[in-house]
Amino acid sequence: MIKVGVVGGTGYTGVELLRLLAQHPDVELKAITSRGDAGVPVANMFPSLRRRVDLCFVDPQSADLGSCDVVFFATPNGIAMQQAAELVAAGVKVIDLAADFRISDIAEWEKWYGMKHACPELVAEAVYGLPEVNREAIKKARVIANPGCYPTAVQLGFLPLVEAGVIELDNLVADAKSGVSGAGRKAETHILFSESADNFQAYGVAGHRHLPEIRQGLSRFANAPVGLTFVPHLTPMIRGIHATLYGRIKKDVDLQALFEERFAGEAFVDVMPKGSHPSTRSVRSANMCRIAVHRPQGGDVVVVLSVIDNLVKGAAGQAVQNMNILFGLDETAGLGQIPLMP
Amino acid sequence: MIKVGVVGGTGYTGVELLRLLAQHPDVELKAITSRGDAGVPVANMFPSLRRRVDLCFVDPQSADLGSCDVVFFATPNGIAMQQAAELVAAGVKVIDLAADFRISDIAEWEKWYGMKHACPELVAEAVYGLPEVNREAIKKARVIANPGCYPTAVQLGFLPLVEAGVIELDNLVADAKSGVSGAGRKAETHILFSESADNFQAYGVAGHRHLPEIRQGLSRFANAPVGLTFVPHLTPMIRGIHATLYGRIKKDVDLQALFEERFAGEAFVDVMPKGSHPSTRSVRSANMCRIAVHRPQGGDVVVVLSVIDNLVKGAAGQAVQNMNILFGLDETAGLGQIPLMP
Amino acid sequence: MIKVGVVGGTGYTGVELLRLLAQHPDVELKAITSRGDAGVPVANMFPSLRRRVDLCFVDPQSADLGSCDVVFFATPNGIAMQQAAELVAAGVKVIDLAADFRISDIAEWEKWYGMKHACPELVAEAVYGLPEVNREAIKKARVIANPGCYPTAVQLGFLPLVEAGVIELDNLVADAKSGVSGAGRKAETHILFSESADNFQAYGVAGHRHLPEIRQGLSRFANAPVGLTFVPHLTPMIRGIHATLYGRIKKDVDLQALFEERFAGEAFVDVMPKGSHPSTRSVRSANMCRIAVHRPQGGDVVVVLSVIDNLVKGAAGQAVQNMNILFGLDETAGLGQIPLMP
Amino acid sequence: MIKVGVVGGTGYTGVELLRLLAQHPDVELKAITSRGDAGVPVANMFPSLRRRVDLCFVDPQSADLGSCDVVFFATPNGIAMQQAAELVAAGVKVIDLAADFRISDIAEWEKWYGMKHACPELVAEAVYGLPEVNREAIKKARVIANPGCYPTAVQLGFLPLVEAGVIELDNLVADAKSGVSGAGRKAETHILFSESADNFQAYGVAGHRHLPEIRQGLSRFANAPVGLTFVPHLTPMIRGIHATLYGRIKKDVDLQALFEERFAGEAFVDVMPKGSHPSTRSVRSANMCRIAVHRPQGGDVVVVLSVIDNLVKGAAGQAVQNMNILFGLDETAGLGQIPLMP
Repeated sequence: MIKVGVVGGTGYTGVELLRLLAQHPDVELKAITSRGDAGVPVANMFPSLRRRVDLCFVDPQSADLGSCDVVFFATPNGIAMQQAAELVAAGVKVIDLAADFRISDIAEWEKWYGMKHACPELVAEAVYGLPEVNREAIKKARVIANPGCYPTAVQLGFLPLVEAGVIELDNLVADAKSGVSGAGRKAETHILFSESADNFQAYGVAGHRHLPEIRQGLSRFANAPVGLTFVPHLTPMIRGIHATLYGRIKKDVDLQALFEERFAGEAFVDVMPKGSHPSTRSVRSANMCRIAVHRPQGGDVVVVLSVIDNLVKGAAGQAVQNMNILFGLDETAGLGQIPLMP
Repeated sequence: MIKVGVVGGTGYTGVELLRLLAQHPDVELKAITSRGDAGVPVANMFPSLRRRVDLCFVDPQSADLGSCDVVFFATPNGIAMQQAAELVAAGVKVIDLAADFRISDIAEWEKWYGMKHACPELVAEAVYGLPEVNREAIKKARVIANPGCYPTAVQLGFLPLVEAGVIELDNLVADAKSGVSGAGRKAETHILFSESADNFQAYGVAGHRHLPEIRQGLSRFANAPVGLTFVPHLTPMIRGIHATLYGRIKKDVDLQALFEERFAGEAFVDVMPKGSHPSTRSVRSANMCRIAVHRPQGGDVVVVLSVIDNLVKGAAGQAVQNMNILFGLDETAGLGQIPLMP
Repeated sequence: MIKVGVVGGTGYTGVELLRLLAQHPDVELKAITSRGDAGVPVANMFPSLRRRVDLCFVDPQSADLGSCDVVFFATPNGIAMQQAAELVAAGVKVIDLAADFRISDIAEWEKWYGMKHACPELVAEAVYGLPEVNREAIKKARVIANPGCYPTAVQLGFLPLVEAGVIELDNLVADAKSGVSGAGRKAETHILFSESADNFQAYGVAGHRHLPEIRQGLSRFANAPVGLTFVPHLTPMIRGIHATLYGRIKKDVDLQALFEERFAGEAFVDVMPKGSHPSTRSVRSANMCRIAVHRPQGGDVVVVLSVIDNLVKGAAGQAVQNMNILFGLDETAGLGQIPLMP
Repeated sequence: MIKVGVVGGTGYTGVELLRLLAQHPDVELKAITSRGDAGVPVANMFPSLRRRVDLCFVDPQSADLGSCDVVFFATPNGIAMQQAAELVAAGVKVIDLAADFRISDIAEWEKWYGMKHACPELVAEAVYGLPEVNREAIKKARVIANPGCYPTAVQLGFLPLVEAGVIELDNLVADAKSGVSGAGRKAETHILFSESADNFQAYGVAGHRHLPEIRQGLSRFANAPVGLTFVPHLTPMIRGIHATLYGRIKKDVDLQALFEERFAGEAFVDVMPKGSHPSTRSVRSANMCRIAVHRPQGGDVVVVLSVIDNLVKGAAGQAVQNMNILFGLDETAGLGQIPLMP
C-alpha cells in the first residue's frame, strides 16, 4: 500500500482527491492537513465522506508527512514551493496540484503569480504531469507539476495538430468555458449562487495565469513559439470544462485519423466519432477527456471540442493518474468511475 | 458471475442501472432491451458509457432473457406484469423498478395506475424490496417490487417512529421535494430546462401514485391504518429527494437513540448527528439514505429529514442492493461509490 | 415627486429597491448610502442599473436623509433601530426592510436577534406592513416594519383559514422553500454556486427568526395563541419562495370561496383556480402572491400553496406598496412589472 | 393606439412579446392565434399573464388580422412567408420573428431551411430589422425581418470593426453561447432539465442556420465577402447570449473610441468601460446589448464580448423596437424594463 499525505484538504481539489483516494485499492491515507481546521473530522466538513474517511484534519506542522511515500499539495499557489524541497530530500514524492512547478521560466512565473519563487531549483527538475505527453519522464520524477484544468483541456485538444504541424502557429484561439467549481471553495461574492446562476460571463481576457502554461506546452509540442488568444468564461454549472479551439489549417490531412492515432491506447482520452459534440456531463466525475475534431464547411479552419471534468482529469484524477505512473501501478487503478449521467 | 438482463435501458433508471452494473464485480451484463432503439449501441445514446458498456440495445423479443439469472425491469408501469410470469417460470429472478408489484391491494393498484393488472398472482408472492425492513424475505423472493423513490425516503424516515409507536398515526405529513430526473427521460414540456430551472412547484396535491404505496408501508410498520398527507414538489436540481416528515409525539423517547438503534448495522442508512440538516448532495450518486431527527423547540412535533439520490437508493442502487441480497453476495458489492461533492 | 433615500443599497434587497424605484413614476431618488462603497457609482457595482441610476453611494453620515420624504432601510438587522428615531423626529417616514420593528415583544425580539433593542418606543408605534391586513394603519404610520419574506408567504396563505376559524390552531405546519437570494449577498461558503446548485437542504429546524414573526401574525389573526412548526429549506434557484401549509380542518366551509372572498380586490394576491399548483416563476420579478387551496382526497387536512418572489412581494416590492399607501398614491404605482417567463 | 395581432403565441418568443406588449403604452392587443390551443385563455397557459392579458388564443383562420395595424409572427420558420403577402396587401405591417425574410439569396435560404420559399418577392422588399444599421429603411418598411438571436449579438459586436475596416475579413471567429430558451418551447429530449442542467455542449459546428444570416450582414457592413467560423453552444441558463468574437487587427485604431462613437446615441447598445466583462444577467429581461472590446496583451487580436437577452434584444424586444420605429413612436416606448438582478 502506498502511504499518502494530502496537504490542504478543505478545497474542492482536496475533497475530490479524498473521494478518489478513498476508493483506490493501493492507497493508505495517512494524513490530511489543514491549518484552519486541525482536529475537525474530515467527514464533518464533507458529509459525503462519512463512513469512508475516518481521519481528522491535522496541523501541517504535526503531520508526519516525511513518512509518506507521496504527498499531494491541494493548496493555494505558493505553498508547495516552500515545503517540497524538504520532502523530496526525505525521499517523498511530491505531486503539486497548484501552479508552483508548472512554468519553467521563473521570471514569467513570478510575473503572473505575483510572488518570488521560493524554490527555482525544483522547478528545473519537476516534470509537467501530462501523461499523454510526458509519461516516461513522470515515471522517474521526484516532483510532478500537475497541470491546470484549462491547460489540460486545451493542450490535449491542440496536441495532435501542433505536433504534426497541421496548423498555423501564430494565431491560435482557445475559447474555454468552466464550471464554477474551478474558482474554488472560497467565500467570494462573484461565485455566489445568486451571482453565478442563470449567468454567463468571460473573465481575465486581458490575461489569465493559465495562458503562459498553455503557451509553454504548445511551444514544446511545436518546438517553436506559438501565438495564442485564450479567453476563459464562467458557465453556470458545477463541474466541467469545455474548450473550443480554433486553428488555421496549413497542411491537408485526415484530421479524424490524426487524432485517433495520436491517442490510440490512451485510457483517458477518448476521440469521439466524426461529427460529435462532446458534452461536459459525458465526463462528469470521471478521469476522461473527450475530444471531437471538426472542419466546418470543408474550409481551412479546424475546430476542436475538448471536454474534461475540471476536478478530475483537470486536477485530482490526473494527479492520481500521475501517482499510478510514478509507482508503477496500473495507470487506471482507482480511476474506474463511470461518468454520472444525468 | 451473475448473468443480468435489463429490460428498458433508455430511461434514467435504466442508464443508472447500467452505470452500477458495469462496475459490479460479480455481474455479467447479457442483454439490454429497447423496443425503439434496437441495434443502437448503448454508448451512442449515452456517451458516458463509452468504453464501459459495449452492448447494443436488442429487441425485447429477440433478447434471450430466459438464460439470465436475474432480469431488471426499468420500464414504464404495466410492462413487467406482462413478462414476469414467464421469466419466473423459467427460474429467472425478476426485479421490477416500476410499480407493478408494489401494491398488494389489486383494486387499489388499478385505481391509481388506471389499468387492469395482468398478473395479480405474482403480486401476492412479490416481496417489497426495502431491505431495511424485508431483508429475510428478499433472500427467498422470486419477484422483487423495488420501492418508489419517494416511498423509500419517506418510509425510512418514518420507520423508527411508527414501529415504536412514538407518534400519532392519524395525521402524518410528508412534504417531499424531488429533482427533475424523477420525472423520467420523457419529451414533455413541463420538465424542459426553461420550465423547470429557477422554479419551484408542487404537483399532485390531490393524489400521487406514491401515496398508496407509502400508506401501505407505514400501515404495515404500525399494524394499523395511518392517515397521511403527501405533497410532492419539483425542485430545480437533477438528482435527489428531500423528504421533510412531520408527526405528533405521543410517547416521550430519546429520538436520536431510537433512530441510531433501528439503523445500527445498516450499510445504506446513515443517521446523522443531532441537529444535522442532511443535504441531497451528500448522497448524490451513492446508494445511501441520510436521516436527521429533530424536535423543534422541545415541543410535541417530531421533524425528520430524509435524503436519497432518487436514481440510486430511490431506484437503481436499491435494485442492485436487492440483487446482492437475493444472490447471497455482500450487500454492498458494486455499491461503493462515494457521493459526488461538489 | 416623493423624495426617497435608501440606506444600505449594496445587498439584494437594496438593488431590487433601486430597480423598482427607478421605474416608479412618482419617486425621486435622492440618496443611496453605503458605508463601505461611498463614492462608487451604483451602476459600477450593479451594471444592470447602467443608464438608469446615476447616483453614487454616499456615506451614511454625509447623506442628507433628513430632507427625504421617506427613507428605506435595506440594512442588516440592528441598523434601523439606531437611526429611525432621529428621522421620525424630522418628519421623515421610515420603512425598515429588516426585522428591527417587526416583533412587539421586545424580550422575544432580543432573544431571537441576539442584541439589545435600541429603540423599543418606536417598536410600540410601528405598523407591521402587511397591507392585506393592516392597510388602514399603514396610511397613518410613521414607521413601517416591512414583513420578512417567509412571513409574507406564510401569513397570506394561512390568513383566511385562521381569521375564519376554519382550522385547529395547535398544530399548524409551514414547510417553506426559498431561493438562494433570500440568504443575501454575503460572501459565505454555504451559498456558493458549487454548494447550493444541484442541492436541496433544510436549515434552522431548531428555530428560525421568522418563526416568532409568523406566530405573532397568526396569533393576531386568531386572537389566540397558535402552535406552529416552521421548517425553511434552501432550493437551488435565485428567486422565489414556495410555502406549503398544512392545517387540520375543524369547520366545513367552501375553502375556494373563502380564499376568493378574503382577497377580492387585492391587487397583489391572486387566488388561483381550484386544483392549481402555483409556480414560483409565475411571480418572478413581480409584486404578487399567488395562492391555491387544496383538500386532498376530501379529508380533514387543508393544504395551501403560497408563492412569492422573495425580493419583491417578500421585500422591496412590498416596501414600495407600503410607500404607495403611506403617501396616498395608487397602491400599484410603479409595481406593474409582469412576471418574467421563462 | 396601435392595433396589434400576434400569430403563434404559445412559444417563448410569443409569450415574451405578450409580456412586452401588455406593458406598452401605445398598444392594443387585438388577437393572439394558436392552431392547437384556440379557445384557451392565454393566462391559463402562462399564469404569469393572469390579470394582464385577458384574451383567449384564437384560430388563425378566424382571427381578424386584417384589421390590425401590425402583425407579429412568432411562429416556426415557413409560416409567415405563406401569410404575409395577404396582410401586406391589406395594408397591415408585418414583423416576422422567424427567418422567412432574413436571407436575400433565396437559393441560400432554401438550402439552409430545407424548404421551398413561398414568397420570394416579399423577401426582396423586406427590411432586415437591425435598427442600429437599418433605422431609416425600417421606418418605411412593409415587412420587417426581425434578426435572429445569435445574429443580433454577433453583428452588433463586429459592426464597428468591420465598417471601419479595422480587421482582416477572411478569418473571423464567433464563439457564441446561448441559454436554453433559445431552443424554444418544444418537447424534445435534449433540452430537458436533466439533460441541459450542469452541462455544456457545442452544437451545429458543421453549420448552423444563423451562419448565412450573420455572414450576409457582415458582408454588407464590409461591402465585401467575409470568412466566418461560427460555433454555437448551449449553456445551462434560461436566458442570455454571450458572443465572444475574435478578429485580427490590420489597422491600428483606438478600439474603445471606435465602439463608443459608433453606438453613441443608441438607446439599446451600451459600450462598457475599457476592461469590462459584460454578464448576460446584466441584460436579462431587458432590450439591451452590452459590449466590451479588448486587445489582449496588446497583440494583434481584438476580442469583443457582446451580450443580449436572446428573448428580448434577440427577439421580442427588438421586434417591439422595430414596431416603435415603424409607427413613429419613441423608440424606447414600452421597453423601459430594467434588467433583473439577481
